[in-house]
Amino acid sequence: MNLTKLSKTELTGLCADLEKQYEGLKAHNHKLDMSRGKPSGEQLDLSNDLLTEPFSYRSENGTDSRNYGILEGLPETRKFFGDILGIEPDNIIIGGNASLSLEYDALMRMWVFGSKGSAPWSKLPKVKFICPVPGYDRHFTMLQELGIEMINVDLYEDGPDMDRVEELVKYDPLVKGMFCVPLYSNPTGSCYSEEKVRRLAAMNTAAEDFKIFWDNAYGIHHLYDEGEKLADIFALCREYGTEDRVFYFFSTSKITFAGAGVSLVAASEDMIKEIKGHMFCQTIGYDKVNQLRTLSFFNTHGGIREHMKRHAALLRPKFELVLDRFEKEFADSGILSWSRPKGGYFISVDTLKGCAKETVALCKGVGLTLTGAGAAFPYGKDPNDTNIRIAPSYPDMKELADALDVFCICCRLAAVRKLLEG
Amino acid sequence: MNLTKLSKTELTGLCADLEKQYEGLKAHNHKLDMSRGKPSGEQLDLSNDLLTEPFSYRSENGTDSRNYGILEGLPETRKFFGDILGIEPDNIIIGGNASLSLEYDALMRMWVFGSKGSAPWSKLPKVKFICPVPGYDRHFTMLQELGIEMINVDLYEDGPDMDRVEELVKYDPLVKGMFCVPLYSNPTGSCYSEEKVRRLAAMNTAAEDFKIFWDNAYGIHHLYDEGEKLADIFALCREYGTEDRVFYFFSTSKITFAGAGVSLVAASEDMIKEIKGHMFCQTIGYDKVNQLRTLSFFNTHGGIREHMKRHAALLRPKFELVLDRFEKEFADSGILSWSRPKGGYFISVDTLKGCAKETVALCKGVGLTLTGAGAAFPYGKDPNDTNIRIAPSYPDMKELADALDVFCICCRLAAVRKLLEG
Repeated sequence: MNLTKLSKTELTGLCADLEKQYEGLKAHNHKLDMSRGKPSGEQLDLSNDLLTEPFSYRSENGTDSRNYGILEGLPETRKFFGDILGIEPDNIIIGGNASLSLEYDALMRMWVFGSKGSAPWSKLPKVKFICPVPGYDRHFTMLQELGIEMINVDLYEDGPDMDRVEELVKYDPLVKGMFCVPLYSNPTGSCYSEEKVRRLAAMNTAAEDFKIFWDNAYGIHHLYDEGEKLADIFALCREYGTEDRVFYFFSTSKITFAGAGVSLVAASEDMIKEIKGHMFCQTIGYDKVNQLRTLSFFNTHGGIREHMKRHAALLRPKFELVLDRFEKEFADSGILSWSRPKGGYFISVDTLKGCAKETVALCKGVGLTLTGAGAAFPYGKDPNDTNIRIAPSYPDMKELADALDVFCICCRLAAVRKLLEG
Repeated sequence: MNLTKLSKTELTGLCADLEKQYEGLKAHNHKLDMSRGKPSGEQLDLSNDLLTEPFSYRSENGTDSRNYGILEGLPETRKFFGDILGIEPDNIIIGGNASLSLEYDALMRMWVFGSKGSAPWSKLPKVKFICPVPGYDRHFTMLQELGIEMINVDLYEDGPDMDRVEELVKYDPLVKGMFCVPLYSNPTGSCYSEEKVRRLAAMNTAAEDFKIFWDNAYGIHHLYDEGEKLADIFALCREYGTEDRVFYFFSTSKITFAGAGVSLVAASEDMIKEIKGHMFCQTIGYDKVNQLRTLSFFNTHGGIREHMKRHAALLRPKFELVLDRFEKEFADSGILSWSRPKGGYFISVDTLKGCAKETVALCKGVGLTLTGAGAAFPYGKDPNDTNIRIAPSYPDMKELADALDVFCICCRLAAVRKLLEG
């Protein structure tokens, strides 16, 4: 039933009915949370052997991981992740428990020191970043903290609107960078096509020090066996002589423990040298014991790809529950569209124009916390107030079903009220 | 025998004799390293149960430490370290594996954002820091990276030359801060007296945003049962209304594993609020699993003080070996003076003027690596070329004895050659 085609009388009747249903929800005293992309307890349990399983604290070359040193991380850790991501170990530096911190540090280095003799960004009258939207709120927070102007560019299923990106970077030297989540993007699940990755590598930028923050947070986080492939951005950049353009990030936060994983930054030879020069002032080295603990865990548990299949087995039913329910409830409703991701942690929905905030508020009113409406946009401002990020990973199946009951009623109610206004 | 009193003939004979001894050292093909303050393998072994001993990943309040979140660290971790250091848990944020990173971040925040509305330090024509010398090379590296002018102030057994410090901060608003290692200072082992801590808290600074980086790296690292007491700088600051002045750092790097410990920053209520505001942009949270692992370890092994006694039992004989040897070889020599620390990781020696570089080079020539001469001074420049940092913790007793054989001959040889010049 397409709600947008209903008469005023029909809508009024439906609204009264939905309001009754909404009142009914209150009795459940729900305390449901779908706000953050957190792994569930069951997913975390998959890695519990990390906590106590014996492993050698000596690296293959004899280094005592317990002691100080080895700024760039242990050779076998760099090789392990290099093999997974198709990156040379020499182009990788292993970090602490959060790739977000490595991203922040990379941004701060450009801000304070610049790169290859270019002016530090803090010295410029203004700095602008391209932000594919909807996107990851934490990236925007980081940019906002530095007063960097964020320019929205639409993100499609196969990546950002590259015509627009190319236009933005071509003439304005103050457009300095861009955050990308190239695979199973947060929150849309978009996967950058090879053509778009190529265009990112090839494009002419007025800024010589233009930087792509390539946050491959979901690089191996497939829900199905036939996972999406991501083009090798470094190989493409080498074709165009732009390999200094990319800071590549990855972590095991959503592979082992969300709060106690291992992260990495990868970059060109020159950039790695620069990063290490600054990093030397910042730390004697990151946690190498956790590097060996993590590697040993994968070795004794069938490898990282097998481990990701165990995650997928837990996540897939949740995604399918949401998607099936949306299909059933909203297929021809005219009031909701949604992404159908094959990996990652989120489903992105678009309500009728001007209904996202109201839907989230209605949900909150009956005990379902969603990510704040607008959070997937710079400055928290969704220009159409349509986007809501659904994070189905954390609740169990029962809670998720309850949350969907709530969401579907609230979404309908907000839409019907809006239609009645119009 | 006071070498400075010898005749030229006597010196010439002695020099020939020492040169023969030096040649003799080459036959040993030593590969000795006393360059860094690293714990020994035996010390690290004290904490091996950290690697596999079971512990609960749930915090006392039920938080799953494996998942994301809790920016400031778990309540019991903050309480644990608060009890040890005499700081309110609310004034503590737990960091990652390195307090050095927390120091860098604190400095960068002042540099980029300023504090309480003050101008970011990067916007000023110049920023100056007071550096008690000799001091910790990593602190100086950090300041140098930002182009901060470093002003040497003498460090005595009971703390810095406070007359000079007070004079420097009083009129110049560009003197913005000071790094201090208040207990068993690196490398002299100096312990700040209560009077000097009070003067640091009380002093009038032209800069409203003057910051003391209080790096209490060796806060419980006593070699003897009757450890030195450190005055409570926060309590003293409260007396004078200067509690925003102090960033306090601590870590378990030299308590559990040097590369995989837990660090913290402590500050006033207002500063903690500010730090958290910025930190929120930088990370979702540090490694909480390691926080609980570390706490559980101390709980099952008799507490942190007992653990430090086990370290002291391993370190004390090494310090005593060095000090006894120095006493025997150099007591009335007139060519070497040295510190007699009661804790920490270093012994600081002063050679005859102009002999430190030569001594270190001579040692290097026969297989003993020492910290580079001058490293304990800003810009690596020891104005008198006298200071050498001795780090006795890492070698075993046999290696340490060998290293001392080398050091004593090289030190004498450099001195005798210098005396022959003069």
